[in-house]
Amino acid sequence: MSGKYKRYELPVRKVSIFEVGPRDGLQNEPELISTDDKIALTDMLTDAGCTRVEVTSFVHPKWVPQMADAEKVLAGIEKKPGVLYNALIPNMRGLERAIACGLDHVVTIMSASQSHNRKNLNMSVEASLKELENVISRARSAGVKVRSYIGTAYGCPMEGAVDPHRVLEIALALEHFGSYEISLGDTTGMAHPRSAFEVGSLVKGNLKDAALAAHFHRADGIEFANVLASLEAGIDIIDSAAGGLGGCPYAPGAKGNIATETLVDMLHRLGIRTGIDSEKIQSAGRFAKSLSAYYRDEAGHE
Amino acid sequence: MSGKYKRYELPVRKVSIFEVGPRDGLQNEPELISTDDKIALTDMLTDAGCTRVEVTSFVHPKWVPQMADAEKVLAGIEKKPGVLYNALIPNMRGLERAIACGLDHVVTIMSASQSHNRKNLNMSVEASLKELENVISRARSAGVKVRSYIGTAYGCPMEGAVDPHRVLEIALALEHFGSYEISLGDTTGMAHPRSAFEVGSLVKGNLKDAALAAHFHRADGIEFANVLASLEAGIDIIDSAAGGLGGCPYAPGAKGNIATETLVDMLHRLGIRTGIDSEKIQSAGRFAKSLSAYYRDEAGHE
Repeated sequence: MSGKYKRYELPVRKVSIFEVGPRDGLQNEPELISTDDKIALTDMLTDAGCTRVEVTSFVHPKWVPQMADAEKVLAGIEKKPGVLYNALIPNMRGLERAIACGLDHVVTIMSASQSHNRKNLNMSVEASLKELENVISRARSAGVKVRSYIGTAYGCPMEGAVDPHRVLEIALALEHFGSYEISLGDTTGMAHPRSAFEVGSLVKGNLKDAALAAHFHRADGIEFANVLASLEAGIDIIDSAAGGLGGCPYAPGAKGNIATETLVDMLHRLGIRTGIDSEKIQSAGRFAKSLSAYYRDEAGHE
Repeated sequence: MSGKYKRYELPVRKVSIFEVGPRDGLQNEPELISTDDKIALTDMLTDAGCTRVEVTSFVHPKWVPQMADAEKVLAGIEKKPGVLYNALIPNMRGLERAIACGLDHVVTIMSASQSHNRKNLNMSVEASLKELENVISRARSAGVKVRSYIGTAYGCPMEGAVDPHRVLEIALALEHFGSYEISLGDTTGMAHPRSAFEVGSLVKGNLKDAALAAHFHRADGIEFANVLASLEAGIDIIDSAAGGLGGCPYAPGAKGNIATETLVDMLHRLGIRTGIDSEKIQSAGRFAKSLSAYYRDEAGHE
């Protein structure tokens, strides 16, 4: 039997996974997780083959008590050669703490929509860009490389649709300031494959030097269709969190991140290389869930 | 800001959802569900706009006690104009029961892989085809239209990969016997977007008269990437079950069906019409979960 046989071709053969579990995954957990457990999770992730891990956040402990032990976590993890350890810095003070720790990669954050940026960072998009220009300049002078999130890149829970060209403008500004990588954040799980493809390919096609990543949140599985559409747009860096942790499963529109172990499963089924060990990342995902008050019950069902 | 702006084009503008919740969703539930609840679920689904529902199965009650009330369920549901009510028939005896009920649409089942067909139906693929030739012939002479599942179309848990050309052969045979629609079943959640696209487009491109559907099972979200790849292959009929019911979440490789409410959500986000009301299908999904011993706990978390 012959017959038509269309090949399914993706422009991507290898994906670099940016693991955000220890930071984005754990930051909203209602019960304080021990520093030792955070260190153990990070070490399991790098042992599984993750080469880029967002370990913690230099946010003020008043805002995110869960991340108050940032320095201790960074001091305690096993530093493996070839692994880039990152931390989120919300502002210049966070950057100075990161520099004091000797960290050489940090991550900045802002939103594409005014309403969400004001709610999250208490300033306008323009003010965030101005501050990030200073932060990124200071980071570069200290030899620290900067990755930049653009939140609400695929839609804003307050404003609805976000103009892809607005996202591009912000991405180009951040690239101009010196960010080496932009990550488009689907902050509240509003993306769909069309927006994932169109926003992704627009930004990807216009960045000159900076790399581009996509960062989706859980949306009952739709996030994996969004990943597929992003791969089709040529995006080869995907953010995810072991165990699918993050957000609050009880609050609508604030679900967790894409589960790294499922992302690895899908990519490997597709023949796309990740450099990550399937079994070890499954274990890391189970361990991550065991740390989560939100997911502990669910994990018990598996 | 201008810049490259690739449009994301899908060959499909409208999707027909084939709802399997009352049958495939409930059949493995360990506790007997009342006939009234089954009727209520079916009525909620058609009230939400589902126009094709697999209501029950005419399988011997010794094998599937949950479906022992097939006649009562079919007698009790509200018959809405424009809705096609179906039932699964495993064999000729099942067909006769369906005919006796006055049902005019039935669904047959077999697997593409020998091992799975033997395990599930206790006969070879060739013997199943021979029996289905007789069953479909009898159905047609009684004015009953036949839809046919091909299980393990994207892979077999026992044999691994399944040759897409073998799937095509079986599909063409079933079409030749008189099936008006073939549904490719990812029986144990092994599909990935490449297999979804390649098997789907091969069969779609070679069927002469019969329509083609895709039937995925839950795989931690990967099923929605499989749906997207199927749409890209031009498939515009997707099977799903309200609440994502089906299978046994505790048993590896036997997860539930795609959740209809999430499928509707993704399709509507994409601007694809389904004719289904988003809010009503969410309610039907919650009701379906409330009937399920497996999902009752999970549902309580939402």
